[in-house]
Amino acid sequence: MAVMGSNLARNFAHHGYTVAVYNRSPQRTRDMIADHGSEGDFLPAESLADFVASLERPRKAMLMVQAGKGTDAVIAELVPLLEEGDMIIDGGNAHFADTMRREASVREHGIHFVGTGVSGGEEGALKGPSIMPGGSAESYESLGPILEAVSAKAPDGTPCCAHLGPDGAGHFVKMVHNGIEYSDMQLIGEAYDLLRRGSAMRPAEIADVFTDWNAGELESYLIEITAEVLGHTDAETGRPFVDVVVDQAGQKGTGRWTVQTALDLGVPVTGIAEATFARALSSGTVQREGLKGLLDGPNAETTATPKEFASDVRKALYASKIVAYAQGFDEIRAASAEYGWDIDLGLPSALWRSGCIIRAGFLDDITKVWRSNPNLPSLLAAPEFAKIVNEAGPAWRRVVAFAASAGIPVPGFSSALAYFDSLRSSRLPAALIQGQRDFFGAHTYKRTDKDGVYHTDWSGDRSEEKMS
Amino acid sequence: MAVMGSNLARNFAHHGYTVAVYNRSPQRTRDMIADHGSEGDFLPAESLADFVASLERPRKAMLMVQAGKGTDAVIAELVPLLEEGDMIIDGGNAHFADTMRREASVREHGIHFVGTGVSGGEEGALKGPSIMPGGSAESYESLGPILEAVSAKAPDGTPCCAHLGPDGAGHFVKMVHNGIEYSDMQLIGEAYDLLRRGSAMRPAEIADVFTDWNAGELESYLIEITAEVLGHTDAETGRPFVDVVVDQAGQKGTGRWTVQTALDLGVPVTGIAEATFARALSSGTVQREGLKGLLDGPNAETTATPKEFASDVRKALYASKIVAYAQGFDEIRAASAEYGWDIDLGLPSALWRSGCIIRAGFLDDITKVWRSNPNLPSLLAAPEFAKIVNEAGPAWRRVVAFAASAGIPVPGFSSALAYFDSLRSSRLPAALIQGQRDFFGAHTYKRTDKDGVYHTDWSGDRSEEKMS
Repeated sequence: MAVMGSNLARNFAHHGYTVAVYNRSPQRTRDMIADHGSEGDFLPAESLADFVASLERPRKAMLMVQAGKGTDAVIAELVPLLEEGDMIIDGGNAHFADTMRREASVREHGIHFVGTGVSGGEEGALKGPSIMPGGSAESYESLGPILEAVSAKAPDGTPCCAHLGPDGAGHFVKMVHNGIEYSDMQLIGEAYDLLRRGSAMRPAEIADVFTDWNAGELESYLIEITAEVLGHTDAETGRPFVDVVVDQAGQKGTGRWTVQTALDLGVPVTGIAEATFARALSSGTVQREGLKGLLDGPNAETTATPKEFASDVRKALYASKIVAYAQGFDEIRAASAEYGWDIDLGLPSALWRSGCIIRAGFLDDITKVWRSNPNLPSLLAAPEFAKIVNEAGPAWRRVVAFAASAGIPVPGFSSALAYFDSLRSSRLPAALIQGQRDFFGAHTYKRTDKDGVYHTDWSGDRSEEKMS
Repeated sequence: MAVMGSNLARNFAHHGYTVAVYNRSPQRTRDMIADHGSEGDFLPAESLADFVASLERPRKAMLMVQAGKGTDAVIAELVPLLEEGDMIIDGGNAHFADTMRREASVREHGIHFVGTGVSGGEEGALKGPSIMPGGSAESYESLGPILEAVSAKAPDGTPCCAHLGPDGAGHFVKMVHNGIEYSDMQLIGEAYDLLRRGSAMRPAEIADVFTDWNAGELESYLIEITAEVLGHTDAETGRPFVDVVVDQAGQKGTGRWTVQTALDLGVPVTGIAEATFARALSSGTVQREGLKGLLDGPNAETTATPKEFASDVRKALYASKIVAYAQGFDEIRAASAEYGWDIDLGLPSALWRSGCIIRAGFLDDITKVWRSNPNLPSLLAAPEFAKIVNEAGPAWRRVVAFAASAGIPVPGFSSALAYFDSLRSSRLPAALIQGQRDFFGAHTYKRTDKDGVYHTDWSGDRSEEKMS
């Protein structure tokens, strides 16, 4: 029970629940009670056995520990103390495959294992996070109302918590949430970089642009805090804060997992991949330092006015963001089919409307889209979103073309545009790739004009053989 | 022993080695001997025990089976029949992590497990493949000369086979070879698509362009066969062959592994990622069919002459290709450090010069670069390659900008350019991302002007605290 766990415990207490708290280090538990004991009914425990003994049946033991082997250790200690029907809720950022393994293992003891995504950081945990529970439907019957009570509430008042599906479904959706967060942040970074380098705006001016954007279609927590960060001046140097920060982005693994899993599922998530790799590149000091001064290119500025340019960048950002979300939902749908989770696609966006890092006005629109047509082949197929990306097209293309000409890297914007243009294409060069594969590896191909699988005798008379 | 195995056995026999052959189905072995027995000294075996008994000590048992569980099954059968010092050589496309596991397990019995990449398809196996062995240095002493004898020979006469490093090093390098192959093929596909859609050239005309390119810096097997495939006319319809092939590219997993592993290692391999996702996108019929007619965009052609345009595309292709190779070598170096393989970076490119799918003239240049300076921070830091990408810059930028304007998807070209421009940037927007992360998750940041790790109290008075 570090800060996240302590804040979540306080949140439960604030909602009138009696909360037993336990930390491996008893002093931590004592400190927490000393600091916050007056906020509600806490039952501090100095041993796991006391902790379990103080819980009402069916017991609901929530773990807030660092994902990984620590989680397995605590589960191994807990299971012998629990009884049939009790629940272990893992609120950490576990990999969904670990959650599936743990759920299956604990289920043998008649215990429910509920892998639960919790998003919103320390403040969200205290004041209302977005909560993404998986696990059995049965566990959700008694657990759901409690989690819903402490969760964030969407603008329409509904809790940002709902049962997403069995075993790993909750942690899967949380993983994709984080992957989308990577993409959102990368796209915002590119928008900032374009305005800074392509239009010579100062950070404080760009902060105003983001504040302005936050009043429109891009309204979101990340746009809001971007304005705050860009508007902040370093007290020590008097320089813009963003200029004194080392430009190497850290990561904790959920973006990487999202991309790795998408590769296994065969779902293109280029926006999340480019964002994840952009962070890795920024931290790749060997290459960055070693190439300093060796690579040439322009440093051109746009001929558009700052206002026109910012308007183009805004449209490009929104279109690229919609693409990233479309890809994320494709991944959730593919996993739901692969693992038999039967996830209601309208739920993730509904749960992300408040409490979490990617909360944004347009998640309401996404929710409405999936609610009215859960079988859409892609988020981009919704008329309202198709209209937005189509209308953004000219601005989006101007921005990507300008960035290429001006030497400003926009991996997120350009890969999103390439995804859009690929889906728009009636024919892709994949046909040539199939020809190459048949040529060098006899991998065969299909024909557009008739069924079957074919191979051409490339090293012989180039006759075609029907293989199956 | 399917076609690859049979061809490799014949290759050994052609070089004067006596080759014991065994297949789970005895009829297959009999057929192989009936068809090819006269080509050399074969010892057909109808049981694994007979096969092992017929081998000279130290025994060299080479497996050519489908990667996966089948490999484990054959190993389990083989190990009890072998003696200390014998070798099992896995010539399939195993995942390097499986190879590391198998090597460690078999080593307990005093047996060498040599995971070996073999590239060149069926024809390469027969006439001389590129061979990438891992495993112990000791095993290579007796095995190396045999593998080198049957391998392809580089233009300078050296065998395209050398010991890359212990346990999984061989299969790792083969995996990256395949990832680079994905990238090469995607870039060629984009070049074709640009010429086709952006300059209204017919496939036969584009075939001529590729033939022309094959006489220059792009000289390579894949460029050569692209000209063959594009020049081929479908006998049945009289249409260009490429137009009757279904445009959905297949994949067998090694591209995916390359990207997943790079994510674990924190190495950006955007070129391979975009290529892998482009194949997945092409096969994503739900999205492609479902979005048909819903997404708008231009279908513009270049105002450049076909010759000028082809020249730009050629330079963009070459620069993007160099970026993909730079990324692939970064991945090999990172794995070598991670697993303690101590791979000589000059070896992979040397082994790829002949026999394999990505064989190309410029691999000689890459080999020379690593040989003269193995500590270069990136392939792009070699003066000869920096010069090429720098000089390609204007053409590369024109092509990517044109593609964005014209609605032609070039995920490979544009992500390579973004990588180049990111490495060229003295400051990246990763600084803003670190600011955002500190704002919402107290993830801390470093400062450019002094050591330490810092956090700003964003929700309070915005004072800065030194955390460590």
